[in-house]
Amino acid sequence: MQILVINAGSSSVKAAVIDPETGKRSLEMNAERLLDAPLIEFSDGTKIELESKGPERAIAVCLEALKDKLKDTPIAGVGHRVVHGGEDFDRAARIDEEVEAKIEALEKLAPLHNPINLRGIRAARELFADVSHFAVFDTAFHQSMPRRAKTYALPKDLMAEHGIRRYGFHGTSHKYVAAEAARYLGAQPKDLRIITCHLGNGCSVAAIEFGRSVETSMGMTPLEGLVMGTRSGDLDPGIIPYLHEQTGLPPEEIDELLNRQSGLKGLTGVGNDMRTILDESTKGNADCQLAVQVFTHRLRKYIGAYAAIMAGVDAIVFTGGIGENSPIIRHRASQRLSYLGAIINEDKNATTRLSETAPVVDFSMQHSRVKLLAVKTDEQLAIARECGKLIEKADAVNTLPTIPV
Amino acid sequence: MQILVINAGSSSVKAAVIDPETGKRSLEMNAERLLDAPLIEFSDGTKIELESKGPERAIAVCLEALKDKLKDTPIAGVGHRVVHGGEDFDRAARIDEEVEAKIEALEKLAPLHNPINLRGIRAARELFADVSHFAVFDTAFHQSMPRRAKTYALPKDLMAEHGIRRYGFHGTSHKYVAAEAARYLGAQPKDLRIITCHLGNGCSVAAIEFGRSVETSMGMTPLEGLVMGTRSGDLDPGIIPYLHEQTGLPPEEIDELLNRQSGLKGLTGVGNDMRTILDESTKGNADCQLAVQVFTHRLRKYIGAYAAIMAGVDAIVFTGGIGENSPIIRHRASQRLSYLGAIINEDKNATTRLSETAPVVDFSMQHSRVKLLAVKTDEQLAIARECGKLIEKADAVNTLPTIPV
Ligand SMILES: Nc1ncnc2c1ncn2[C@@H]1O[C@H](COP(=O)(O)OP(=O)(O)O)[C@@H](O)[C@H]1O
Ligand SMILES: Nc1ncnc2c1ncn2[C@@H]1O[C@H](COP(=O)(O)OP(=O)(O)O)[C@@H](O)[C@H]1O
Repeated sequence: MQILVINAGSSSVKAAVIDPETGKRSLEMNAERLLDAPLIEFSDGTKIELESKGPERAIAVCLEALKDKLKDTPIAGVGHRVVHGGEDFDRAARIDEEVEAKIEALEKLAPLHNPINLRGIRAARELFADVSHFAVFDTAFHQSMPRRAKTYALPKDLMAEHGIRRYGFHGTSHKYVAAEAARYLGAQPKDLRIITCHLGNGCSVAAIEFGRSVETSMGMTPLEGLVMGTRSGDLDPGIIPYLHEQTGLPPEEIDELLNRQSGLKGLTGVGNDMRTILDESTKGNADCQLAVQVFTHRLRKYIGAYAAIMAGVDAIVFTGGIGENSPIIRHRASQRLSYLGAIINEDKNATTRLSETAPVVDFSMQHSRVKLLAVKTDEQLAIARECGKLIEKADAVNTLPTIPV
Repeated sequence: MQILVINAGSSSVKAAVIDPETGKRSLEMNAERLLDAPLIEFSDGTKIELESKGPERAIAVCLEALKDKLKDTPIAGVGHRVVHGGEDFDRAARIDEEVEAKIEALEKLAPLHNPINLRGIRAARELFADVSHFAVFDTAFHQSMPRRAKTYALPKDLMAEHGIRRYGFHGTSHKYVAAEAARYLGAQPKDLRIITCHLGNGCSVAAIEFGRSVETSMGMTPLEGLVMGTRSGDLDPGIIPYLHEQTGLPPEEIDELLNRQSGLKGLTGVGNDMRTILDESTKGNADCQLAVQVFTHRLRKYIGAYAAIMAGVDAIVFTGGIGENSPIIRHRASQRLSYLGAIINEDKNATTRLSETAPVVDFSMQHSRVKLLAVKTDEQLAIARECGKLIEKADAVNTLPTIPV
């Protein structure tokens, strides 16, 4: 079975054709700079430069080029990454008019993401009209959080009126790496309490208790929680009105500042890339050294907090560009956790290299009660698998049961 | 030695004359409703109703009444509670013109508190002109926090320009109860890792590692951290611009909303008093039940986070009106912490009654590696003690050393 997975962003579209069983990709597409000078690259080496036709058309144009490439590939279904699923979606959904309308209605909560995801869905449904399309939501996995974790301490009517609660994001990745970790440990997610640390450009932590997300660090928006590439993460809420009063910046510009000028970038002034920051900090740049400390201190607090929520933890998982590739960050986050039963194997941590064939590495000591794991995440594959399952289920329903002999 | 301790607030002034050695109070004054109908009550039973003369005069009038009462009591010094000590003060300070000027300069950071604290200082220095006055800061104890704990992930220049960092508050109480806990355990604060939970109308947690505060939940302002009587505590920072956009409320009104209409009050609609909320939740009020869950869930996250920071914990201390008096909250916060080595003794917890003669109660099991303690806080006594120490030190310097025989 081949699933086409589409992730439509404001300035880029990523797509891949994946076999959900094997994880093999037969084609990948990467389209960037959609807003000014669109450039489409395919994994077969083709590059297409386009004239800008405005954001509305750009996605459709990319998908047309993709369709052209897929003339001879039978696609079983199309999976779309959708950022915000609100209250409505606690799992992937087959897209129909009703689902489209619901995604549209959630624009209020995700004005930067849902409208663009929807644009991708609409363009793709027109072009690939004879297969089923599925929406896979970043928020869905966290719908299982108990109310005490979802609820902010704000006036209740205000929260109800405006849909203010913790939704959480990166759910597809958290769920995927927790399942990979369980498989590696010869167990089921339902047997384990896992803390998953997704550390990429965006960063979040989740507490996954016996297979269900019970807490996560991103909140109503993807701004809360860990220090990220350009996002502040947690902040005294009193700072925003204070900044407004001191600088005269309107709230929407402060929001922009917190989302795009803060985090590692704001702390260091050298950009949002953790590799650069680690390099500079090794060379003695004090701002970069502090940024790394603030980053890992915050992460440790979440690890500790989520251990308390689950009354202990069985495995701590590091994933995303930073979690998969940085022994220094993993070391700083997981040293001195022996009070939890987690004892790092420094040699293994330093030599860990994840790959297709080794997507999970255990870098804890053999006698460590809590396993420390680096796990390669793969959100595209996770989306393809969700779609594959939904297609199989539908097929199962539509097939006459075999008659037992 | 008798120390006069003054806590000047916007609508109330509290004062006490205390012997820092014994903790005995020879007189207490409580003045309330300063803004409309001032009423002064003394511990000897006297009540004075005043005509309102405006907030400027109100504090002075109260202190004049107090001075009158103290005609025959020799006062060794006056201790003033000051909320914000900024970068300047990491301990109590003898007040002179320079200190006054510094407190004034911090108005920007604590516009609701420092100006009023200063008004109290100025009035008292005029009336009690022949003794030393001392400022004891809520922030001072937390000055020892490492930079990784103080620093938000915002643009560094912006933070430097506007003094944005974690300061922390309730420091006098955290320090006091940690010392009481250590004394009770036959140890010194420098031997222990203690998590102190101050749960009153305002609530905060501190991580006190070997006598030094290394983290605390309140931040640049007293709004961050735990759920409080009327304050939201932690919040996705993205919620503020969202609320502004949705409701049109200006940032200063959102600030007001987060400080005065949120927390337990906002969640329940029945007010900010934990006793009422616990009563109602026992009677089945679902909002109150949820509020208690949100309150304790947040608290548990902080306990877990601070254990991670200190790589374990030796004692967890509950104080403040809620921490001292509510077995239910203590139970919910400290159950299922055996992964940390903390095992609650439910019977002891349920029967714990703190008093002058039993200001500390251990409600953990005898075999619990981590001690769970309820400790009576006494910020007035703590202020008196700080002053007493400073006076003794000055006296020691001004006295010829005794000649050893
Ligand atoms: N070897 C490495 N060491 C440290 N950080 C790395 C390394 N490789 C990648 N990263 C970091 O991973 C981050 C990007 O993560 P990624 O998961 O690819 O991003 P996204 O969230 O956009 O998917 C960047 O900060 C990058 O510097
Ligand atoms: N027996 C009790 N059970 C639960 N909460 C209590 C009890 N007694 C007092 N409290 C709560 O303590 C809080 C006030 O704490 P306190 O430390 O006195 O306040 P402040 O921070 O103003 O000094 C209120 O929420 C009150 O309901």
